[in-house]
Amino acid sequence: MPQIAYLGPPGTFTEQATRQLTWDFDAELRPFETVPLALAAVRSGMVLAAGAPVENSVEGSVPATLDAMTTDEPLVAVQEALLPVQFDLLGRPGIAMSEISTVASHPHALAQVRRWLAENLPGASVRATSSTAAGAAAVAAGEFDAAISAPVAIEHYPSLVRLASGIADVRDAVTRFLLVRRPGALPDPTGADRTSVCAVISDEVGTLAEMLTELSLRGVNLSRIESRPLRERFGEYRFFLDFDGHVADARIGDALTALRRRCSTVWFLGSYPKADRSPASVRPTASEQAFQVSAGWLEDIRAGRLA
Amino acid sequence: MPQIAYLGPPGTFTEQATRQLTWDFDAELRPFETVPLALAAVRSGMVLAAGAPVENSVEGSVPATLDAMTTDEPLVAVQEALLPVQFDLLGRPGIAMSEISTVASHPHALAQVRRWLAENLPGASVRATSSTAAGAAAVAAGEFDAAISAPVAIEHYPSLVRLASGIADVRDAVTRFLLVRRPGALPDPTGADRTSVCAVISDEVGTLAEMLTELSLRGVNLSRIESRPLRERFGEYRFFLDFDGHVADARIGDALTALRRRCSTVWFLGSYPKADRSPASVRPTASEQAFQVSAGWLEDIRAGRLA
Repeated sequence: MPQIAYLGPPGTFTEQATRQLTWDFDAELRPFETVPLALAAVRSGMVLAAGAPVENSVEGSVPATLDAMTTDEPLVAVQEALLPVQFDLLGRPGIAMSEISTVASHPHALAQVRRWLAENLPGASVRATSSTAAGAAAVAAGEFDAAISAPVAIEHYPSLVRLASGIADVRDAVTRFLLVRRPGALPDPTGADRTSVCAVISDEVGTLAEMLTELSLRGVNLSRIESRPLRERFGEYRFFLDFDGHVADARIGDALTALRRRCSTVWFLGSYPKADRSPASVRPTASEQAFQVSAGWLEDIRAGRLA
Repeated sequence: MPQIAYLGPPGTFTEQATRQLTWDFDAELRPFETVPLALAAVRSGMVLAAGAPVENSVEGSVPATLDAMTTDEPLVAVQEALLPVQFDLLGRPGIAMSEISTVASHPHALAQVRRWLAENLPGASVRATSSTAAGAAAVAAGEFDAAISAPVAIEHYPSLVRLASGIADVRDAVTRFLLVRRPGALPDPTGADRTSVCAVISDEVGTLAEMLTELSLRGVNLSRIESRPLRERFGEYRFFLDFDGHVADARIGDALTALRRRCSTVWFLGSYPKADRSPASVRPTASEQAFQVSAGWLEDIRAGRLA
């Protein structure tokens, strides 16, 4: 059975996401202490893949994932998962809400349920733990009365009961996770794919605008952009880009070669099905057929068959 | 004496940054429990301004700042501060490094000194607290042996001593903070200024590239870009942009009016001196004089004085 790494400890949102990312095959999940350690295990071949957060407001470590993917040997994402930011309140059996005087969790999780706590447990004081799962562990050990946890946590702490679920101050917030492995055969295009790259460009006026124009000229829809400073390379900037489409698509391939010409470095970080399955809308001028017809036309001209 | 809000508790990096942001006037610093509460105190007039993190990998809450600035009544940044990500190790007087068995801090701070701890305190186990300052408080209360803290923390816990300082796994990492107040007279241009805006554009192919081209055509150098989803407005995207220059500069004013024409919403988030004081380089075609000459030329033509 293949082993899959994830950012531990067991019982966190990342474990829950990694289960979702590996739903279609039997896998043994192995927790690692940091994202870089989990990805190092993928690079060394110790595990087949790793589940890692990329946009996760609950327990952080998102810059760690992007940084770790673009340091050392290349890795690519092959699957995407979205999890709603909704928590359970776990406690010991028989405890009444009015008896709860301490609530433990990761500081970011506590910040995201502040209003709920004020309304439902106004007398309780909050206690920080190193992860949402560590909060549940501390309650199981008798240190605190209740924990704000990921829904998966209760499976690891069967001595606890769910006192409330679906806890969220903000509706519809989601966190995003990727299954990351060593380069190899790519996932098949599904018509509803996302491609992620990291591009390094010189810190000159207009280079970013030109790079994005290369994408838009080919009808490529950007879904995320984030600049991150490059400490070790002065005068250069790094951009993480997500856009609709698969590297196997003609318009995406054409756009990527343009980026490669313009950028000092382009990391290909994967083409994978979008978790929300929303199909890419492709302009007629950027369709597979349009690219095929125009390539054939040029070939004919170059061969002297057409003028 | 004016009161200035900051994200508490006292003794954190945000307190340290807020001191730096208010170095040029006498101010009484008041801690608030969250960034939204600190900014609400500015909006209501309870305090003059607030120190808030915008790029801070230590204790998080950066999305909270950007979200809170673009929700409710407008606020603008008037001053910027950069702090190195370097920690102190605090403990009780007389304790030897070999006697330290527990080290407390915010989980993100612990993650950023992991290597240092492994090398210098290999036998110690880490304990999470809700902030770096709460770690120092817990050591002062006798709960743990040592704390990883902001350099300012020791001033609040005079019973502790500094066992090590300048602790950092990554050299040169910095966090960025802004002093935020209600709109009013802007800081004077210094020639080394930054302007921050948040622009909402429709989620169509090319709108971002066009927006950035408006900036680059006027020689405006982008220093940061980040997309953030807009939950409540489907089909629109929000971008936080930082660029060199002051809204009083002709090229920046011209670029902002172009953004205003293109975007459904543009929040002006301030023009303020850059903390690193690096002067903006301005192309001859985007200089104040070039804008003045060309505006005068058009005026003359429109008045029939020139053809």
